Amino acid sequence: MNEPVYETALGASSLDKITLLGQDLAHDVMGKVGFGELSFWLATQRRPTPGETRVFEAVLAALADHGFTPTAIVTRLTYLSAPDSIQGALAAGLLGGGSRFLGVTEDCGRFLHEVLASAGDLPTDDAGWDALALETVRAKRKAREFIPGLGHHVHKQGDPRTPRLLEIAAEEGLVGPHLALFTAIGRVHPQVLGKTLPLNGAGVCGAALADLGLPLELLRGFALLARTAGLIGQLAEELRHPVGNDIFLAVDLNNRPVEPDPYTP
Amino acid sequence: MNEPVYETALGASSLDKITLLGQDLAHDVMGKVGFGELSFWLATQRRPTPGETRVFEAVLAALADHGFTPTAIVTRLTYLSAPDSIQGALAAGLLGGGSRFLGVTEDCGRFLHEVLASAGDLPTDDAGWDALALETVRAKRKAREFIPGLGHHVHKQGDPRTPRLLEIAAEEGLVGPHLALFTAIGRVHPQVLGKTLPLNGAGVCGAALADLGLPLELLRGFALLARTAGLIGQLAEELRHPVGNDIFLAVDLNNRPVEPDPYTP
Amino acid sequence: MNEPVYETALGASSLDKITLLGQDLAHDVMGKVGFGELSFWLATQRRPTPGETRVFEAVLAALADHGFTPTAIVTRLTYLSAPDSIQGALAAGLLGGGSRFLGVTEDCGRFLHEVLASAGDLPTDDAGWDALALETVRAKRKAREFIPGLGHHVHKQGDPRTPRLLEIAAEEGLVGPHLALFTAIGRVHPQVLGKTLPLNGAGVCGAALADLGLPLELLRGFALLARTAGLIGQLAEELRHPVGNDIFLAVDLNNRPVEPDPYTP
Amino acid sequence: MNEPVYETALGASSLDKITLLGQDLAHDVMGKVGFGELSFWLATQRRPTPGETRVFEAVLAALADHGFTPTAIVTRLTYLSAPDSIQGALAAGLLGGGSRFLGVTEDCGRFLHEVLASAGDLPTDDAGWDALALETVRAKRKAREFIPGLGHHVHKQGDPRTPRLLEIAAEEGLVGPHLALFTAIGRVHPQVLGKTLPLNGAGVCGAALADLGLPLELLRGFALLARTAGLIGQLAEELRHPVGNDIFLAVDLNNRPVEPDPYTP
Repeated sequence: MNEPVYETALGASSLDKITLLGQDLAHDVMGKVGFGELSFWLATQRRPTPGETRVFEAVLAALADHGFTPTAIVTRLTYLSAPDSIQGALAAGLLGGGSRFLGVTEDCGRFLHEVLASAGDLPTDDAGWDALALETVRAKRKAREFIPGLGHHVHKQGDPRTPRLLEIAAEEGLVGPHLALFTAIGRVHPQVLGKTLPLNGAGVCGAALADLGLPLELLRGFALLARTAGLIGQLAEELRHPVGNDIFLAVDLNNRPVEPDPYTP
Repeated sequence: MNEPVYETALGASSLDKITLLGQDLAHDVMGKVGFGELSFWLATQRRPTPGETRVFEAVLAALADHGFTPTAIVTRLTYLSAPDSIQGALAAGLLGGGSRFLGVTEDCGRFLHEVLASAGDLPTDDAGWDALALETVRAKRKAREFIPGLGHHVHKQGDPRTPRLLEIAAEEGLVGPHLALFTAIGRVHPQVLGKTLPLNGAGVCGAALADLGLPLELLRGFALLARTAGLIGQLAEELRHPVGNDIFLAVDLNNRPVEPDPYTP
Repeated sequence: MNEPVYETALGASSLDKITLLGQDLAHDVMGKVGFGELSFWLATQRRPTPGETRVFEAVLAALADHGFTPTAIVTRLTYLSAPDSIQGALAAGLLGGGSRFLGVTEDCGRFLHEVLASAGDLPTDDAGWDALALETVRAKRKAREFIPGLGHHVHKQGDPRTPRLLEIAAEEGLVGPHLALFTAIGRVHPQVLGKTLPLNGAGVCGAALADLGLPLELLRGFALLARTAGLIGQLAEELRHPVGNDIFLAVDLNNRPVEPDPYTP
Repeated sequence: MNEPVYETALGASSLDKITLLGQDLAHDVMGKVGFGELSFWLATQRRPTPGETRVFEAVLAALADHGFTPTAIVTRLTYLSAPDSIQGALAAGLLGGGSRFLGVTEDCGRFLHEVLASAGDLPTDDAGWDALALETVRAKRKAREFIPGLGHHVHKQGDPRTPRLLEIAAEEGLVGPHLALFTAIGRVHPQVLGKTLPLNGAGVCGAALADLGLPLELLRGFALLARTAGLIGQLAEELRHPVGNDIFLAVDLNNRPVEPDPYTP
């Protein structure tokens, strides 16, 4: 077997130089490229514009921390149990970034993309987007499926992140077809569903990331990146004002042993 | 038992508002706070200055990706084996962020901090720093211990990240005692060790993070945050130009079965 | 809000007693219940018969270790990088237990279950099973889908685990409908596919676990339990005869930097 | 560079054969080797005796599940948040297997081993063990350190697992120096500490594993193996009688936003 060679455009080192994405790391990246900008660049191998960076960082801010979510609780409890391993506490928290809690961002981005991909020529005005959105909502209704990004268990009258992210994207000239379709769904769905649901923040983030041209397979990854910063915040707070042991005891002291319930398939 | 209450200054929501760190998330954070800045703020609950943010982001850039490290290989192999779970591939990679590969940043920051904490009044000029550094290097030599942050297996004649980070910190007026001591160690160690070793990038990053006043217990966490962005880059590249299966086969096809070697304590 | 109560039939403690699954742990479990038997009991809340335990442990043996799989490599590399955290090395390896490498066991068990659930009255003789299998293989062929558990990249002429597990199940009177259908697929598929593929070990394990009445949602979990034992074996070998660093260097020294390849959606 | 070769005595495959630990997997392992026995064999590359297997499996039973521990809560919350990834839920739970909750087993085994290694000739009767134990307890007292394995927050008058495991080890003729020293510590510590503390179950498990000749570096690994079976039990119960969402809500609904508390080093 020939010895394999592994190509990469990411980090590389020689005796006196380190490159990252083809750049001189020390001179052209450090001190010159912000962390959000660099994260975008690493994921796409192209440097984002300042406007793209601003929208991207607004998305990361929107997803960084939502208080005592399962992922935050998990990171705190894992730190309580294994304080010797910060990496374990962060990794455990990220493992909750799956289909239910952090997945909406990716689900919404992918869903909008599929609709757009099968739509042929894209609309050029609001009326056109409304027509496409109406068709989309009706199809989902008929299939008895939820629309990713629609509805929120707390922000029932509107998620404040949604108009704000649309505003930022508009300021930067970055409202593309995903955001346009998502917005139109927000306008037309009451006609079909008979009630008005909010466009939620996780969903609008997915639409914005898709409009930025980020890989759809990794939209969940950006939610996880944002959450990593949030989980470090949770750990920092836990170190100084711990609640992990109280959470553990509140569960353990309220346990009630019951008889086994034999499983049958 | 009284019902417990869990206090947090991080994310919180009500019907029509979301706060983060006491700020209105939509209006005062999204579109106004960069991702590096926000990460710093989450970890310290205080907003960094632009200079602090610049140094912090330079550190994150320095640590984001170092090519085919064990963590990068692990993320690619985990994705190969379980492509259904991006969060699992990222978490697996982060779990390699332990004492050997990503730990130097934290080890160096903590080490410098301990020396400073036990040093009494801090030096006020280079001669003073050199004297403290000399004493420190001699003590480590006597204890036959390595000095965290000194030496590099590739950049034997100098790690290009080190002078660059010092330069950025100097530009921002953020060269504090940790960087001062680290730099002095770089000047004086040849007198004691009889050879000149480079101050490595991971070490200078730890010194800079400590000078920024970030929690020492979480210095490894910032290396992991940087690496999360890098691992997303690795996954993005793996999706388009995969090498994971080649790596797996290069190992598996070169396996050689041997007889068991019974363990005795 | 009323204080919640959390019910469990698993472990519980009081001042002088520990129960597990309603048993006195010290007197009725320790020294009397093997580890395979206990694992089955924990998952189903019913104690398996000796025959069920034997089939279950045969499955665990079949899945415990397959040499230098991605999961094994990942555990060794994570230990190399973070030797301070055994739990991190094991967790990282398990994260590779996803759809591609360890998933066949679950996929096959679920697939067979779905066919059986929609088949109405089950066959009572080989001819009947062959007819159901033929219908099943034809339907998959028509849908251009693979049949889980059919085919193996190494054991092209037959996976030695398959006849052995069937033999053990037959000895214990535990060949149920999943194994019957799987065996019949092995007999009839050449008629449809025009070539003979082996019934693989991961697949027959899934069929056997399903016949044992274990929860289908957790079939992957049993593969992960078996693999945990295997990964501890990998770590034990790595501690004494390390190869992790050689694997890392074989990749890192064969890296070739290339220019970035900007992503477009 | 010469192509590297990776040696292993664990799993290996050829066209028509699979070996594990030098055995024919299908014919000599499946159906003949229990799961506890195999786990021991994988870790030591030697087959345990039936007596060793019984003690080992008693240890695994003692450590498998302790109800709503942080690891169990973490697995349930991770499943709640990411039900698409069983491997993620298990891995997250295992990441809590660190120094505080599951670490006592390893800490105790290592501690006893160090005492024995520095003790010279080992005692041959109870009086001799008591003398060594007294010296050991006094040294720890003087150093103001805890003795691993001594004390329990619930079983203040004695942990029922401890006498039972000693009984099983005695029945199998497997009370070695680690258990002898641990028992002696139980007898003599009140003389030094002025109060009687129980020898806890995690500690006696560590002593027993060390007496079995298992690698000290991996004692935590066996606790994790046991816990993997327990966590599968937790997931199986969560699937049928979920409490994860109640736990999450009990925390989230009791959150109280507070003002940021800026960190100073």
